Amino acid sequence: MSLIYLLDLCAVGVCAITATLEARRRELDLFGVVVVAIIAGIGGGTMRDILLGRLPVYWIHDPLYVVVGMAAATLTFFLERRLAIPMDFFLLPDAIGLALFTVIGTSIALGANIHWFIAALMGVVTGVFGGVIRDILCNEVPLILRTDIYIYATASLLGAFLLIALDRLGVTHNLALIAAMTLVVAIRLAAIRWYIRLPRMRPYGS
Amino acid sequence: MSLIYLLDLCAVGVCAITATLEARRRELDLFGVVVVAIIAGIGGGTMRDILLGRLPVYWIHDPLYVVVGMAAATLTFFLERRLAIPMDFFLLPDAIGLALFTVIGTSIALGANIHWFIAALMGVVTGVFGGVIRDILCNEVPLILRTDIYIYATASLLGAFLLIALDRLGVTHNLALIAAMTLVVAIRLAAIRWYIRLPRMRPYGS
Amino acid sequence: MSLIYLLDLCAVGVCAITATLEARRRELDLFGVVVVAIIAGIGGGTMRDILLGRLPVYWIHDPLYVVVGMAAATLTFFLERRLAIPMDFFLLPDAIGLALFTVIGTSIALGANIHWFIAALMGVVTGVFGGVIRDILCNEVPLILRTDIYIYATASLLGAFLLIALDRLGVTHNLALIAAMTLVVAIRLAAIRWYIRLPRMRPYGS
Repeated sequence: MSLIYLLDLCAVGVCAITATLEARRRELDLFGVVVVAIIAGIGGGTMRDILLGRLPVYWIHDPLYVVVGMAAATLTFFLERRLAIPMDFFLLPDAIGLALFTVIGTSIALGANIHWFIAALMGVVTGVFGGVIRDILCNEVPLILRTDIYIYATASLLGAFLLIALDRLGVTHNLALIAAMTLVVAIRLAAIRWYIRLPRMRPYGS
Repeated sequence: MSLIYLLDLCAVGVCAITATLEARRRELDLFGVVVVAIIAGIGGGTMRDILLGRLPVYWIHDPLYVVVGMAAATLTFFLERRLAIPMDFFLLPDAIGLALFTVIGTSIALGANIHWFIAALMGVVTGVFGGVIRDILCNEVPLILRTDIYIYATASLLGAFLLIALDRLGVTHNLALIAAMTLVVAIRLAAIRWYIRLPRMRPYGS
Repeated sequence: MSLIYLLDLCAVGVCAITATLEARRRELDLFGVVVVAIIAGIGGGTMRDILLGRLPVYWIHDPLYVVVGMAAATLTFFLERRLAIPMDFFLLPDAIGLALFTVIGTSIALGANIHWFIAALMGVVTGVFGGVIRDILCNEVPLILRTDIYIYATASLLGAFLLIALDRLGVTHNLALIAAMTLVVAIRLAAIRWYIRLPRMRPYGS
């Protein structure tokens, strides 16, 4: 669990950094940026815990999650002008974060002894919901629902399915975790590389 | 309970269909539409369960709710161009769905042994909150809060009051359910037919 | 607890009044205004209770909170044209409400035996989250995240820290409550008086 815990904290930090960079588009002050960044990092797991009734939510008894999100956002806030980090730099860490949140969420849900399909959904919720709240707070249609993102939540869903399938087939949990995470990262990066999108609805009048 | 359960599933499906049609106004991809549709269908009951502490929320142990919402949204997504379903077609099913969610929510809240007024509010939350989250995800001021809808949540509230009053008067629960649902549908359709609205605030400068 | 309870109800009422005045900017009908106002009043404590797992949330078993919010919003709705209340009139009551919600939220969280840092965050959540949901419902970037507000959530955070510090130092709880509330109000009013803001991010291209 120790390695997973460390990676989980890293994923929270990466989420906070990308959220801070995203927040450049909005007139947010330091406090606003830090709040949006923390919520982006812990929002998915929080929603999963609420829906499953695992209360108090996971970060209530472990301040480190909030502290990591806070530190990552504050550093990014003050350094981003100097470093001029391009968003692309975070595509790989972001994909790994998505993969990690997905397998953690799915594992926790499976442990709560629920239907495999709902467990997979909980994996997706853990993976993507932080970003959804981040975008709602910034008053935008959530990025993952829009057409201008390449296969994001779908990668998470397929990874969750693979994890569950391997678990059922009796594969060691650690091996299943790694395989599922690899699938999520691979699909996500392939989608970005070859511009793969889901079909979209044509809006009125088009 | 079996008939109520079936009607509940139907209401989730109808909500998902109308949400999919609404989503035409936004550039959402297939995944985005399905997510918005599922949330529109199960969001109200989910919020009710969280506020009442009935966790895990109701659809965690019954995947059928999510599956129905998913199927309804996907079918609508692919068929809507071909069928050219007018929104008006769903006004009656939508009113029935509102009525059904309202009486289910109120009944559950009464069963939790809380004050009748809060129980009525839980009925309204169950009835309208799915639509509120749907609109927030689509980055709009929720439809039911705006002036361009005819008596919606108010119909739900009056139906909840009637259900509670009849229950107190010793009327059979099934009869009370039917009377309350009839009232909700009647008020809603009358409001649409005769353009009945609540008073509104004049915005600045008018 | 009786005085705190009374002040708590007052804070809900003040929140509801300011939310109603804010809603003038949007085309909301009476129902919409009342809903937004109630949520503004009880949203912070509701979120705190959900995160801490104190379910059902606090107002489920005490309808008075909802009734006070409802009455305050309805009166404001019908009287605001006649009275022409300026927003500035509420700056002091609003600051007191923020202070009160903060100390109540922090006290409750401390009672739940959690890390002091998370307890302070729960105080801030209680203090500001109602306003965040109000702004999301009105389809705006939440006011407290933007740059055009003078030290708001920061005042709440510092007040929560002071309350916890005084508690640790063995100061009577009532005295600590009063000191923390005074600090919140003082910081907030000073920030308004001397236009004190947090640093902000420069948006793209500036």
